[in-house]
Amino acid sequence: MLERIRIVLIGTSHPGNIGGVARAMHNMGLADLALVAPRCEVITQDSISRASGADHLLHQANVHATLEDAVADCTLAVGASARSRTLPWPMLSPRELADRLPTECQPADARVALVFGREDSGLTNAELQRCHAHVHIPTNADFSSLNLAAAVQVLAYECRMAWLSQAQVDTPFVAQSDDDDLATHAELERYFEHLERTLIGIDFHDPAQPRQLMARLRRLYLRARPERMEMNILRGILSATEKAASTKQLKP
Amino acid sequence: MLERIRIVLIGTSHPGNIGGVARAMHNMGLADLALVAPRCEVITQDSISRASGADHLLHQANVHATLEDAVADCTLAVGASARSRTLPWPMLSPRELADRLPTECQPADARVALVFGREDSGLTNAELQRCHAHVHIPTNADFSSLNLAAAVQVLAYECRMAWLSQAQVDTPFVAQSDDDDLATHAELERYFEHLERTLIGIDFHDPAQPRQLMARLRRLYLRARPERMEMNILRGILSATEKAASTKQLKP
Repeated sequence: MLERIRIVLIGTSHPGNIGGVARAMHNMGLADLALVAPRCEVITQDSISRASGADHLLHQANVHATLEDAVADCTLAVGASARSRTLPWPMLSPRELADRLPTECQPADARVALVFGREDSGLTNAELQRCHAHVHIPTNADFSSLNLAAAVQVLAYECRMAWLSQAQVDTPFVAQSDDDDLATHAELERYFEHLERTLIGIDFHDPAQPRQLMARLRRLYLRARPERMEMNILRGILSATEKAASTKQLKP
Repeated sequence: MLERIRIVLIGTSHPGNIGGVARAMHNMGLADLALVAPRCEVITQDSISRASGADHLLHQANVHATLEDAVADCTLAVGASARSRTLPWPMLSPRELADRLPTECQPADARVALVFGREDSGLTNAELQRCHAHVHIPTNADFSSLNLAAAVQVLAYECRMAWLSQAQVDTPFVAQSDDDDLATHAELERYFEHLERTLIGIDFHDPAQPRQLMARLRRLYLRARPERMEMNILRGILSATEKAASTKQLKP
């Protein structure tokens, strides 16, 4: 289970924090670290010192230009969020997230991304809206900003607790899930692009006056956790819609 | 509840870690920090920087020469331990500890100490044996040494989760506990001193060949969580024993 969980850090500015994250991950048995557009060097004296023996995670870390690249193969993306946003998203506590992880991680191709934002400003709304759900670590209302490595520590600890409880109840014969494969993040994103293009094409959506339309649709579909086959159906509907609309436009 | 929980750091050597602990505590709503014989300056650029706005906890921290002083008024002391020791002690997971906290913290004079050891060597056996129980944060067996601030973060997070679950179920009318007052740590220590003196006096115990006798007795009594009245009874027994033994020795 733990090998299917990826920690994604976006726009980190302090090498020491990346080192602290590596140490927290290795302590809890996580190994998959992805860095999106880091705003600092990754391998420095500070990061190696704070990693304190877990610096192989720094060397193995995958660096990506965008969040999309970092989570393209993920079946679940959860964004760490300190604030409640204008458009509420499914919100989990770290414990609620942990309770779901054994099931989420069961399929062999499952990949779960836990996404953390910048030290100074967290995740943007656009980034949060690319996640299926948000996780909020409960904090003192007067002092809510956790250190990045501390936030990763709490979630990594919950991942390990979930894994341990799973390990205790595991029997040699696990019933095969008959769920179809979940759509990956990349497949969902292709769908959202297609959807927006289609909605513009049919004059339902004006990007100059977005009114959170796409955000609301994202929330809806991400919450539904579409399977690959369902995704194919939805995209088929869009293609059919485009085709019908262009046919209509050709008519007088 | 949270105001009755004290974080005790023994022999810390890096100011940055004390700062990180202060930040983790304030984030989770804890405020009572005690430092036992720190091996570094407490207020430095590093500690203030890592505290990141929680440096009032550094200024308010009580500095003590010994663990006994730091936990003298505590009704429960729990030591963070990475290793299983030669003499096994009651061992809790952070979650099991958290489950007990609402009840432990209910009496108005309850004080719970969570005790953390040195960055390089943790708590000594003598220190661990002054605790009622030990708490072990589950870690990767190959890389088990957590950063000090990360360890405090995990336990402080569990404290907050326990407090939140308590806050949810709290009703305006809480039944008064009819438990008698628990003995404080200082009362227990006075008892153990008295007990050892008595056992030596009656030739049961040879400090030159201790054979973990006192450790085993400590474990027994700490596990029993004696009330103050029971403590008085036990000490009365010791006094009576001493008196009887000296009377006997005076006889030919």
